[in-house]
Amino acid sequence: MKIILIGASGTLGSAVDKALNTRHQIVRVGRKSGDFQVDITDTASIEQLFSKVDDFDAVVSTTGDVHFGPLAEFTQDKFQIGLRSKLMGQVNLVAFGLKHIRDGGSFTLTTGQINEDPISVGASGAMVNGGLEAFARSAAIELPRGLRINIVSPTVTEESWSAFGPFFPGQKPVPASEAARGYVKSVEGMQTGKVYRIGWSRD
Amino acid sequence: MKIILIGASGTLGSAVDKALNTRHQIVRVGRKSGDFQVDITDTASIEQLFSKVDDFDAVVSTTGDVHFGPLAEFTQDKFQIGLRSKLMGQVNLVAFGLKHIRDGGSFTLTTGQINEDPISVGASGAMVNGGLEAFARSAAIELPRGLRINIVSPTVTEESWSAFGPFFPGQKPVPASEAARGYVKSVEGMQTGKVYRIGWSRD
Ligand SMILES: NC(=O)c1ccc[n+]([C@@H]2O[C@H](COP(=O)([O-])OP(=O)(O)OC[C@H]3O[C@@H](n4cnc5c(N)ncnc54)[C@H](OP(=O)(O)O)[C@@H]3O)[C@@H](O)[C@H]2O)c1
Ligand SMILES: NC(=O)c1ccc[n+]([C@@H]2O[C@H](COP(=O)([O-])OP(=O)(O)OC[C@H]3O[C@@H](n4cnc5c(N)ncnc54)[C@H](OP(=O)(O)O)[C@@H]3O)[C@@H](O)[C@H]2O)c1
Repeated sequence: MKIILIGASGTLGSAVDKALNTRHQIVRVGRKSGDFQVDITDTASIEQLFSKVDDFDAVVSTTGDVHFGPLAEFTQDKFQIGLRSKLMGQVNLVAFGLKHIRDGGSFTLTTGQINEDPISVGASGAMVNGGLEAFARSAAIELPRGLRINIVSPTVTEESWSAFGPFFPGQKPVPASEAARGYVKSVEGMQTGKVYRIGWSRD
Repeated sequence: MKIILIGASGTLGSAVDKALNTRHQIVRVGRKSGDFQVDITDTASIEQLFSKVDDFDAVVSTTGDVHFGPLAEFTQDKFQIGLRSKLMGQVNLVAFGLKHIRDGGSFTLTTGQINEDPISVGASGAMVNGGLEAFARSAAIELPRGLRINIVSPTVTEESWSAFGPFFPGQKPVPASEAARGYVKSVEGMQTGKVYRIGWSRD
């Protein structure tokens, strides 16, 4: 398969790359790094990416920013970061990718556990993740041509524990290589509309 | 209790009004109708509302627009309707109401079943509902002063069946008075971070 991996240079992205690149052709995309560049907050940039890299079988997104902070200190601008980047950025990869992806192809997007297992400072991230998972469930029943869509929701990775661990008291992190299994399952499996939770489970 | 009911003139709002007004003082708010007016898509308008109607015990929102249409026909403008109105409009009722609501008060927002039980043409509505429910679960653990937040997710009401029924094949509608029970439970009960599903259940 020819797989477009957006966020390929990142913590999750580089683990997903490693898990897929022996069996598939990976087109590595980043904001600044990679074979191609895209800014997922800019729809024109997304359109350009898909007109340059045509004829692909999968889009995997391991990217998306969101602001973390106390609910009481949220401003409209802080909420907009997550809405524009992690939420609509990933939704738009699907909305625009749809016109270019091959029959039977798949979209795999990234959330994280905080929409079901909330933390302090996570109200905006929770909102974004919840929106993405619901979007994927709904899009799954509408996608034409045998296309599929799934979400991977990893817990904090060991590689990111020093940055994010303090917000996740008691959480056991997983290696990014473990999270990568969710992406492999989504791309190489046959399911659609699923959320693959890695390293945590919904109560 | 003094309850600010936003969307009071609507199908759900008027049923909620009826279910609460014998025991509580209802401040009825609409875009054009009601004791006070607000446009939930406009943060300045929300701030004005809460500076005029101070000292309240509950905010109940039964309002919020979203565009329904096939995923393949979605544009950025169509997605923005739901993001600005039903999602951020309701989130902002909490973000701004927070500074004015009395200790022990509650917020009750409205979603609907399509984030868990998707329909065609519902990708944007699903995204918005999923975002709202996750926001509420996360905000619930952060709210200070004994404040609470819940979501009511009614199925289609009998009153709205002629408009929405065609999108919900096989669904049994409920009278709006039945949906109103969820709002009473949220306002008069003690739970927080819950989604009260009326007339349907998650699998
Ligand atoms: N790491 C974790 O433990 C973990 C756990 C659960 C969920 N998540 C979620 O997974 C996502 C990725 O996290 P990560 O830690 O792997 O990120 P990361 O290491 O910071 O990597 C981010 C990647 O995204 C690219 N990127 C950044 N902004 C972009 C934009 N506007 N448009 C396109 N690409 C952009 C970067 O490209 P350049 O290198 O070119 O700048 C980089 O490849 C985030 O949404 C995060 O919330 C992470
Ligand atoms: N009806 C159902 O069967 C059903 C089922 C599940 C979920 N829902 C959800 O519940 C919500 C309300 O539905 P409904 O059918 O009860 O609506 P509705 O009958 O159309 O009433 C809408 C209400 O909201 C007010 N409003 C409209 N735009 C507003 C704005 N920008 N700012 C503030 N207030 C505004 C209106 O005020 P004015 O009268 O002054 O214009 C009116 O009071 C929607 O989000 C809908 O998706 C409805």
